Amino acid sequence: MSTTLTHTTKLKVKFHECDPLRIVWHGNYLKYFEEGREDFCHTHGISYLDAESNGYATPIVSSSCEHKKPLAYGDKFTVETSFENAASAKMIFTYKIFKNEELICTGRTVQVFLDQNNELSLINPEFYQAWKSKINL
Amino acid sequence: MSTTLTHTTKLKVKFHECDPLRIVWHGNYLKYFEEGREDFCHTHGISYLDAESNGYATPIVSSSCEHKKPLAYGDKFTVETSFENAASAKMIFTYKIFKNEELICTGRTVQVFLDQNNELSLINPEFYQAWKSKINL
Amino acid sequence: MSTTLTHTTKLKVKFHECDPLRIVWHGNYLKYFEEGREDFCHTHGISYLDAESNGYATPIVSSSCEHKKPLAYGDKFTVETSFENAASAKMIFTYKIFKNEELICTGRTVQVFLDQNNELSLINPEFYQAWKSKINL
Amino acid sequence: MSTTLTHTTKLKVKFHECDPLRIVWHGNYLKYFEEGREDFCHTHGISYLDAESNGYATPIVSSSCEHKKPLAYGDKFTVETSFENAASAKMIFTYKIFKNEELICTGRTVQVFLDQNNELSLINPEFYQAWKSKINL
Repeated sequence: MSTTLTHTTKLKVKFHECDPLRIVWHGNYLKYFEEGREDFCHTHGISYLDAESNGYATPIVSSSCEHKKPLAYGDKFTVETSFENAASAKMIFTYKIFKNEELICTGRTVQVFLDQNNELSLINPEFYQAWKSKINL
Repeated sequence: MSTTLTHTTKLKVKFHECDPLRIVWHGNYLKYFEEGREDFCHTHGISYLDAESNGYATPIVSSSCEHKKPLAYGDKFTVETSFENAASAKMIFTYKIFKNEELICTGRTVQVFLDQNNELSLINPEFYQAWKSKINL
Repeated sequence: MSTTLTHTTKLKVKFHECDPLRIVWHGNYLKYFEEGREDFCHTHGISYLDAESNGYATPIVSSSCEHKKPLAYGDKFTVETSFENAASAKMIFTYKIFKNEELICTGRTVQVFLDQNNELSLINPEFYQAWKSKINL
Repeated sequence: MSTTLTHTTKLKVKFHECDPLRIVWHGNYLKYFEEGREDFCHTHGISYLDAESNGYATPIVSSSCEHKKPLAYGDKFTVETSFENAASAKMIFTYKIFKNEELICTGRTVQVFLDQNNELSLINPEFYQAWKSKINL
């Protein structure tokens, strides 16, 4: 039984995202991941603003990216964002970027829940647990 | 009698600031202006955080840049930030960027004061007027 | 008789484009203008890569933005990019950003043509003149 | 016998690097790492431009960051960049960012060598091997 939810976002490389090597500057992939993640969250009804209205911030505590191929100016690509069902109180997303059928890079981000006193939540906040139940996780 | 205060900031072009034309992407000059402005404000004792602790935000309502020459990766340059003493309730800064003696670009930003109700202040806030007095403006 | 071509691009504010005031950082509007301009150029068949394949770079020599209202995280907005038919050898675009019906900001960029020796072209390059003819300008 | 070279770079958080959570946006740490790496390379005489003049590009193929604490607007911090002596034809750097004595984050980047045909170099290019010899690695 799979517990993976995946969402696909279509994007296009912009001029200001490219560097003197004429490829996307490596740090900009974290922007693409963020776009994929926000698109996922919007689609699946769990946004950054939901977290906030429930009194939580969800800062990223870990991020990584493995590059296989570069993207260049004007390239169209897709970000596949998948939700990884974590046992601990963390939101984990993995990413795959494709140009046509070709894998460009993979990535992963981990977010935690900070309450209004800036304390790390060791269990899933209620609103988050409710969301997981709603999508059968 | 001059009412111009000027501050000089030394910077160096970073790789991620350059575009496929191998020059600084035009929008990044606004970052250089911000660095110059913050350096000016820090030196002259009037920071963004001062505004905030006095209940004001100081958003930029106008910005412009005229480019004469490009900057390339690794170039060292200076930002000359000047305070323009405005009659109205605005903070106006002008900028000149030089590489060696050569003028690279000029720019200008205008900021207004918004109070805690997000209302535009039509007169100079007290903390700002006090600062201007202190520096004899 | 109007000589204005206009193109509209729909965008959405991303988290990483917002600053501690919780609004879009002013310099990011130049990215939105670039997206509008590239979308315009793609639609009207005159891209940055066309210029390049014809031996020209088209750096921005002037940019400005006048802000009326802020945009915040998640806001949907449109960029209206208009081509201004210049007498001299310049590409001039003006921009209006709207959220719903409300005007958020206006802007303008000017680009020149540099040939392969990095010399400023004082007349319109052939490929550009041909494009203007094609669209009846 | 240690084969680690370390270089320290002092930086300060800029306004435009912070997000609506009022902390540095996570992707901007890759910019800090780049500043640390370029500073290291400049100090130790092995720059991106050296690679280029020898016919190589050195794209980043892997990057990661583990966040312990956030940085906020105006914070002063140091980037400790260390060179990891790899067996294979890779340039590996690790990073530690400190605010005062406190560890803010750790990171790592891996670069490869691409020749002028965009082919991956499986052995160290000569200029790179010469540099390593010069610093006794």
